[in-house]
Amino acid sequence: MIRASIMGATGYAGVELVRLLTAHPEVRLSRLSSVSFEGKALSEVYPALRGICDTVLVGEEDVTEETDVLFCSLPAGHAEKMARRCVDKGVLFIDLGADFRLDDEADYIEWYGGAYQDKELHAVQVYGLPELFGERIPGAKIIGNPGCYPTSVALGLAPALREGLAGTQGIVIDSKSGVTGAGRGLTQTTHFPDCNEAFSPYKIACHRHTPEIEQSLGRLSGKEVRVTFVPHLLPLNRGIVSTIYAPWAGAPLEEIHARYWAFYQGKTFVRVLPLGEAANLKNVRCSNYCDISLHLDRRAGKLIIVSAIDNMVKGAAGQAIQNMNLALGLPETAGLMMVPPAI
Amino acid sequence: MIRASIMGATGYAGVELVRLLTAHPEVRLSRLSSVSFEGKALSEVYPALRGICDTVLVGEEDVTEETDVLFCSLPAGHAEKMARRCVDKGVLFIDLGADFRLDDEADYIEWYGGAYQDKELHAVQVYGLPELFGERIPGAKIIGNPGCYPTSVALGLAPALREGLAGTQGIVIDSKSGVTGAGRGLTQTTHFPDCNEAFSPYKIACHRHTPEIEQSLGRLSGKEVRVTFVPHLLPLNRGIVSTIYAPWAGAPLEEIHARYWAFYQGKTFVRVLPLGEAANLKNVRCSNYCDISLHLDRRAGKLIIVSAIDNMVKGAAGQAIQNMNLALGLPETAGLMMVPPAI
Amino acid sequence: MIRASIMGATGYAGVELVRLLTAHPEVRLSRLSSVSFEGKALSEVYPALRGICDTVLVGEEDVTEETDVLFCSLPAGHAEKMARRCVDKGVLFIDLGADFRLDDEADYIEWYGGAYQDKELHAVQVYGLPELFGERIPGAKIIGNPGCYPTSVALGLAPALREGLAGTQGIVIDSKSGVTGAGRGLTQTTHFPDCNEAFSPYKIACHRHTPEIEQSLGRLSGKEVRVTFVPHLLPLNRGIVSTIYAPWAGAPLEEIHARYWAFYQGKTFVRVLPLGEAANLKNVRCSNYCDISLHLDRRAGKLIIVSAIDNMVKGAAGQAIQNMNLALGLPETAGLMMVPPAI
Amino acid sequence: MIRASIMGATGYAGVELVRLLTAHPEVRLSRLSSVSFEGKALSEVYPALRGICDTVLVGEEDVTEETDVLFCSLPAGHAEKMARRCVDKGVLFIDLGADFRLDDEADYIEWYGGAYQDKELHAVQVYGLPELFGERIPGAKIIGNPGCYPTSVALGLAPALREGLAGTQGIVIDSKSGVTGAGRGLTQTTHFPDCNEAFSPYKIACHRHTPEIEQSLGRLSGKEVRVTFVPHLLPLNRGIVSTIYAPWAGAPLEEIHARYWAFYQGKTFVRVLPLGEAANLKNVRCSNYCDISLHLDRRAGKLIIVSAIDNMVKGAAGQAIQNMNLALGLPETAGLMMVPPAI
Repeated sequence: MIRASIMGATGYAGVELVRLLTAHPEVRLSRLSSVSFEGKALSEVYPALRGICDTVLVGEEDVTEETDVLFCSLPAGHAEKMARRCVDKGVLFIDLGADFRLDDEADYIEWYGGAYQDKELHAVQVYGLPELFGERIPGAKIIGNPGCYPTSVALGLAPALREGLAGTQGIVIDSKSGVTGAGRGLTQTTHFPDCNEAFSPYKIACHRHTPEIEQSLGRLSGKEVRVTFVPHLLPLNRGIVSTIYAPWAGAPLEEIHARYWAFYQGKTFVRVLPLGEAANLKNVRCSNYCDISLHLDRRAGKLIIVSAIDNMVKGAAGQAIQNMNLALGLPETAGLMMVPPAI
Repeated sequence: MIRASIMGATGYAGVELVRLLTAHPEVRLSRLSSVSFEGKALSEVYPALRGICDTVLVGEEDVTEETDVLFCSLPAGHAEKMARRCVDKGVLFIDLGADFRLDDEADYIEWYGGAYQDKELHAVQVYGLPELFGERIPGAKIIGNPGCYPTSVALGLAPALREGLAGTQGIVIDSKSGVTGAGRGLTQTTHFPDCNEAFSPYKIACHRHTPEIEQSLGRLSGKEVRVTFVPHLLPLNRGIVSTIYAPWAGAPLEEIHARYWAFYQGKTFVRVLPLGEAANLKNVRCSNYCDISLHLDRRAGKLIIVSAIDNMVKGAAGQAIQNMNLALGLPETAGLMMVPPAI
Repeated sequence: MIRASIMGATGYAGVELVRLLTAHPEVRLSRLSSVSFEGKALSEVYPALRGICDTVLVGEEDVTEETDVLFCSLPAGHAEKMARRCVDKGVLFIDLGADFRLDDEADYIEWYGGAYQDKELHAVQVYGLPELFGERIPGAKIIGNPGCYPTSVALGLAPALREGLAGTQGIVIDSKSGVTGAGRGLTQTTHFPDCNEAFSPYKIACHRHTPEIEQSLGRLSGKEVRVTFVPHLLPLNRGIVSTIYAPWAGAPLEEIHARYWAFYQGKTFVRVLPLGEAANLKNVRCSNYCDISLHLDRRAGKLIIVSAIDNMVKGAAGQAIQNMNLALGLPETAGLMMVPPAI
Repeated sequence: MIRASIMGATGYAGVELVRLLTAHPEVRLSRLSSVSFEGKALSEVYPALRGICDTVLVGEEDVTEETDVLFCSLPAGHAEKMARRCVDKGVLFIDLGADFRLDDEADYIEWYGGAYQDKELHAVQVYGLPELFGERIPGAKIIGNPGCYPTSVALGLAPALREGLAGTQGIVIDSKSGVTGAGRGLTQTTHFPDCNEAFSPYKIACHRHTPEIEQSLGRLSGKEVRVTFVPHLLPLNRGIVSTIYAPWAGAPLEEIHARYWAFYQGKTFVRVLPLGEAANLKNVRCSNYCDISLHLDRRAGKLIIVSAIDNMVKGAAGQAIQNMNLALGLPETAGLMMVPPAI
């Protein structure tokens, strides 16, 4: 059994990792750390887990003990130290934060405000989006787990950009996320009476996921890509829908659809919907699926792609486990075949 | 006192008209009609109105009796007959449906499937968006009350297009509406368990409001405009947010903001938010306000406009009353100064 | 015009007072105070009020200037000082908190933990539930505005207890409240992802509204009453439903219903529903109504009363204005005839 | 592998069975029937299941082919015919409806309106609530799967009634259910705008689950029990909370709690919460757990028990699978250890 530990286990991504790893056939949970709740049982913080994971939370210094893989969920700028410790101990390091996602340090400096300190680590970092950039994941030591919005966007646009079905100029990405994406920390915006029966965009054209999106679209298209990205907060718990508007390159929609099917052939977690249906985040909740639907605005010359994921699973914990599976040579889908509830 | 009657009073727009007209200082409700509930009291259908409006619902033939203004809410293709009757009787006719919105009959035929029958009526129809096209409303006989999405979009883009602050090519409109927009009729999509914790676009690039949007943007810009319009269904009751992406013409954001302020100076129901804030449908619920916020994606060259209304008020019943006020020479804001609940 | 000021204007009850008083025909808002936001405009804190109430918030010391009535919304134990100042200045003092509700100081000490300091004030306090205990409100100097749960319960049980239609032993009150009842302060329980799709009781049989409920039921029945009271948190914004189980005294349900009708004859804000209907908080939202429905469990000998109010209006700000109206000799319903939205 | 078929697979209970059985290690799905959607793939009706269960729906006549166990979800009065067919073929019959729950035919006639036709079947029916009445389930041929409310109530009261910790007179059960409990059929009450931001009781003291509750409480206490039962509709998808008020027999709460712990020792799916916590339906969603919390109203002499389940799992599909496991000699928890999502 692989021993997995989680740094930041009481954050939303952390506790979702616990939910999924508890059911993983080849993993047992080892250490769970928490700054705020050290010494308490995880099930005291999350009563849903009573009797399922009553593990007592430890501090940062103990979280790499008896561990083969460490999932790390820390604010930007704090992951390097843990990554170094893991690399030195031979522990696989999977970062759910943003510190190992951007290849170009200049992007990191511009959007996150600090420079890379331990540059060696970044030389070996692997961006863990298995369906698109999976070849370097097996055997990786440090995996930057993609952000939730960038996952939905890259999967949605990949076949179009790889195969020239859409242009790269003027792409508009209008994304909507459930409130778990904002994390466990209390804010006025996420106070129930303020958030319920409300809807608004935020961080308009200045969200930190922008350079990560552009990095992926650049790799896919082989060109430099600038996108307009606007996220919105949905009054529901889980899920992201990204509605993506790209210049239509002229192929019939049926052909585009066929190419998407072919592109994702054998990729268990991507479901390209039949033409005429629209992706709905409801259908992927609590699962590792990404649903993609394709639409054409022939009048205005836009290819419209709708991509839906669960931000907590394919957008965080599930994809992190998928990366672990691939890095350690387990079956890619191990522990990840959760069926989304139909209602 | 002006005597107002409502055709289709048990639809959502109809009952919202009742709520607002009940509090209107210069109006008394006269006839309320309903196909499905004729003979019942309105408060039997909507218990919220018990003791407030216990009026017994009549049939279509009686709805124009003792009436100075008729608000008509019928499916597309059925309003002409009532409009004719009103015009002949000297009753102001305000159509909350789509039959008197489009000037070009070809658009109507293309998007709604039938031709205009009584063409005389369409020769005198007035599109009732007071802040933009208000000059012909006073004295009008037939007013086509705008659709909810087109209201939010036209108000959001008007200053930009009128004053050349944005280009007209490749505009993308990503709109999100609460479920009241889908009406009172039962559907699987609006069944609570299917709709709650769900989010998806619908009628992607084929919604009937598209030609109405393009008609308004054409008038505002003086050019033919083709837009990409995608509506989404939000799991909440009231409100629309339209996030609008238009080519930036280069003016500084502060200048754009100043022009918007000037443009809407004296327009009580349009609130241009300070730079840095984002329009949220929460802040306009149950009111006739349209909140507009302005944002710039300098990197990608997009002007981003966020426009929020209550689809039931500024997007339907409130705007219809505003049109009535103007047509009949009442103060524009009479009966419409409802304060949106802060929570 | 009566000059009204609000202490604690940025709390939920405070901002609801602003919404209602803005539309009151005989009142103008004077001072609004806030500890947390002094110096800011109210509309900066609540953007819904932009252009409607941009008043700058003042500190505690200024809130009684140019004021005829002060609405005070402070945590328990802090209202006496302001009440004293108002009484000395001849300003009507209406407390939305708990400091002037309980006649028996021993109850206050037991449930709120402190003793009355300025006992003179309590000698003249009037409990402001107009439909039941209205006789002392005209001319009152200090009014204790009832709690939200106690309002729903007392109105629901009053005719039954006054007229001996139900016994007083073993009454069970199972109440459910929307989240605004918990106030504006951030807590984990009211964090959107924790609160949404959740439901639970809280403060089971130990909520501070218990003695207030028992005080009212005691006055109504002329007996000492002990109740079981359990509140629950509903995942919605506004409204309370109290389901009340009382021993059935044997009268036919039709007779009970007739007595309720007679009891509330002429009380505009109480609506006794026809037999067969059940009170729903939806139908009273944003209004000052209390809807009451009556049901009989003949098999088990229970009279079941369902009482629904908007906790922010009849349960707080609306009732406070009703008390002001009565105390100052205005029409009881002035500014309070808001129609609840049907949807 | 056991071959399981589902009659009524497109109802909410049916599709939840599909979700759970898909992950069951010892079962494979065989036939799925649907009256409304025969000939379609299940995933066309529920797109969440695309790629997971694309089985084509068959008609009633085929549903018992190649089947070892049939789960039947039909309206009351229609299950006998299928039960007979199954018994004759040696297929285990598990009824998720109400036709095999009540031992006393007189109760069935009173509450459901029809008599038992094939009385032999009822002579062998077993009420499938494993934690309380499990002894006859192994080897049973016909299992009446309990109703959702009765499951929550019987589990909540069982230790108290078995061990005399509470009296049986005057028990009040105030239950609240998510909207999936109302099923997939469209109604005005469950139309999103009517149901959202609404809350109300329904079928007050006349819900058909009443005799089933009383049957269980009678078995547990050895006495005839009459309860007051009032269900309410919560604006959320899944889960039931029953707040149960019973006469306190005088034992200290700590002792009551200890007895509950002992009673449910070894029952995996019942979690008795520590004193001081309150059961919340959030913590059991999508899982087979029943959370129970205990509270004392010493002042009024009431033992208050809060019981929370997922109405779709422990209240329907999950418990049905638990019954199948026991009837066929599989481990009781096989396929049922789903971890409830913490958020």
